[in-house]
Amino acid sequence: MVSVHTKLLSLLGNPLGQTFAPQMFNETFRQLGLDYFYFPIEVGNDKLGTIVEAIRCMNYAGFNVTKPNKIKILEYLDEIDELALKIGSVNVVRIQDKVLKGYNTDGSGFVQSLLDETSFDLAETTFFVFGAGGASRAVSSTLAFNGARKLYIIDKFDSASQSLVEDINTKIRNCAVYVDSGSDAVPELLRTSNVLINATGIGMYQDLEGTPVEKKHLFKDLFVCDITYNPPKTRLLRDAESLGCGIMNGVGMAINQGIKGFSLMTGLPEPAEIMRKVMLGIINAQ
Amino acid sequence: MVSVHTKLLSLLGNPLGQTFAPQMFNETFRQLGLDYFYFPIEVGNDKLGTIVEAIRCMNYAGFNVTKPNKIKILEYLDEIDELALKIGSVNVVRIQDKVLKGYNTDGSGFVQSLLDETSFDLAETTFFVFGAGGASRAVSSTLAFNGARKLYIIDKFDSASQSLVEDINTKIRNCAVYVDSGSDAVPELLRTSNVLINATGIGMYQDLEGTPVEKKHLFKDLFVCDITYNPPKTRLLRDAESLGCGIMNGVGMAINQGIKGFSLMTGLPEPAEIMRKVMLGIINAQ
Repeated sequence: MVSVHTKLLSLLGNPLGQTFAPQMFNETFRQLGLDYFYFPIEVGNDKLGTIVEAIRCMNYAGFNVTKPNKIKILEYLDEIDELALKIGSVNVVRIQDKVLKGYNTDGSGFVQSLLDETSFDLAETTFFVFGAGGASRAVSSTLAFNGARKLYIIDKFDSASQSLVEDINTKIRNCAVYVDSGSDAVPELLRTSNVLINATGIGMYQDLEGTPVEKKHLFKDLFVCDITYNPPKTRLLRDAESLGCGIMNGVGMAINQGIKGFSLMTGLPEPAEIMRKVMLGIINAQ
Repeated sequence: MVSVHTKLLSLLGNPLGQTFAPQMFNETFRQLGLDYFYFPIEVGNDKLGTIVEAIRCMNYAGFNVTKPNKIKILEYLDEIDELALKIGSVNVVRIQDKVLKGYNTDGSGFVQSLLDETSFDLAETTFFVFGAGGASRAVSSTLAFNGARKLYIIDKFDSASQSLVEDINTKIRNCAVYVDSGSDAVPELLRTSNVLINATGIGMYQDLEGTPVEKKHLFKDLFVCDITYNPPKTRLLRDAESLGCGIMNGVGMAINQGIKGFSLMTGLPEPAEIMRKVMLGIINAQ
């Protein structure tokens, strides 16, 4: 039963009709017997500051941030974690002793998942990343931050990939390489890569037959990742699987993001097994 | 399961450790199958505006207001109900089409309860009210607003009773009479009264043997009310009952307040029977 002692958590973004974060967190709190309550607040950039000011006066443990607020939120925080600052966006805010500190777990959810599911040594691994939007920025920056050998980055908007490559090379480590969207060298560069990451959204539920790269350019030794899990296997992953490639979708990334967010916001240990089961239950029920 | 469609409600006040409003409302919503969620926000005058600004941006149906915010809240509302304006305080705010309108159900809960439990005709009834604080102001003003014949009002702070009497007589109806706290006429005035109301808090749980008036001044034909229900029978009510007086404690007032607040905030019909059962269950479990 909610009371003045109940710690509040929210997701701030818009639209949030599709989010399962409240269900994931509240079910985890229920199973752990914790007096927390998580609820969504649909808010955009214009009223974000108003909501954050109120959150400061309420019994909040922290909050998640999603589109379109992940960059704007930086203006309203007291502290920003080093990686989040380098990425330039925040998706988790922890409140401790009235100090709001921002983190970015978008990329670390992916990296954790990759390390859990494969035996890649980041320092020995070359990545080819399709997409340079917000999701790619988080994943690519986190890979660089964690010591990836090399990152090729391509986007249909060359200015986006150029800017991301430059940010990574100047703010994190000089390991990113810009690939022009009209380049003929993609197949050749792919052959020198170990891991392909699709962070474009191509192939998602609105675009089931789309793929960022033709099947003929894939090969057995390439590990192929898609950061979506809707559908669980995009055309890219199906193509790769049929060639015998190792594949990974976005489920593990989403689960790890949830687990890290939980731990950051509550200050409690990561309830990995419980949240994994809760999340898989929610995803499979969709 | 909470979602972006869930309508929010809160109680704004401080401290709120003892409130059962969330339990009362959430249990009623559950029984009615309504997607609403009620939670307390401990806030004082200083941050009240910050919270109300955020509430305006969120999916709120309305909110309750309690100490110390019932007067301060008037500054932040768009509209104020006539009776609430005359009382000068608001305990329920309805949000409709982004307009915040304030109401006061503190007094109407009492009046409703009196009319339910007795056959008094207000226009023929003389009241003797002990206390001129916030609770008395709401009850006395609402009695005047609803046509009470006469109201004697006494308080240990004469300035408070003078001011309340003046406000009632100038803003509502000329029916209130100031009684000096040192007056010898109390027993005599009581004998011309039909209903005694204790709105002082004397006799409540911190002060179980206290009473606003000696037993010898009570008489069988006087109907005696206490606006508290903790304890269910104050010494005043026990004294009165032993003399054969009709008595009424604050349970019905609290229940009617909850029912009226529910209906105002949700725009739905009064769920009288459900809330009465829920409230009695909560009160009896205390």
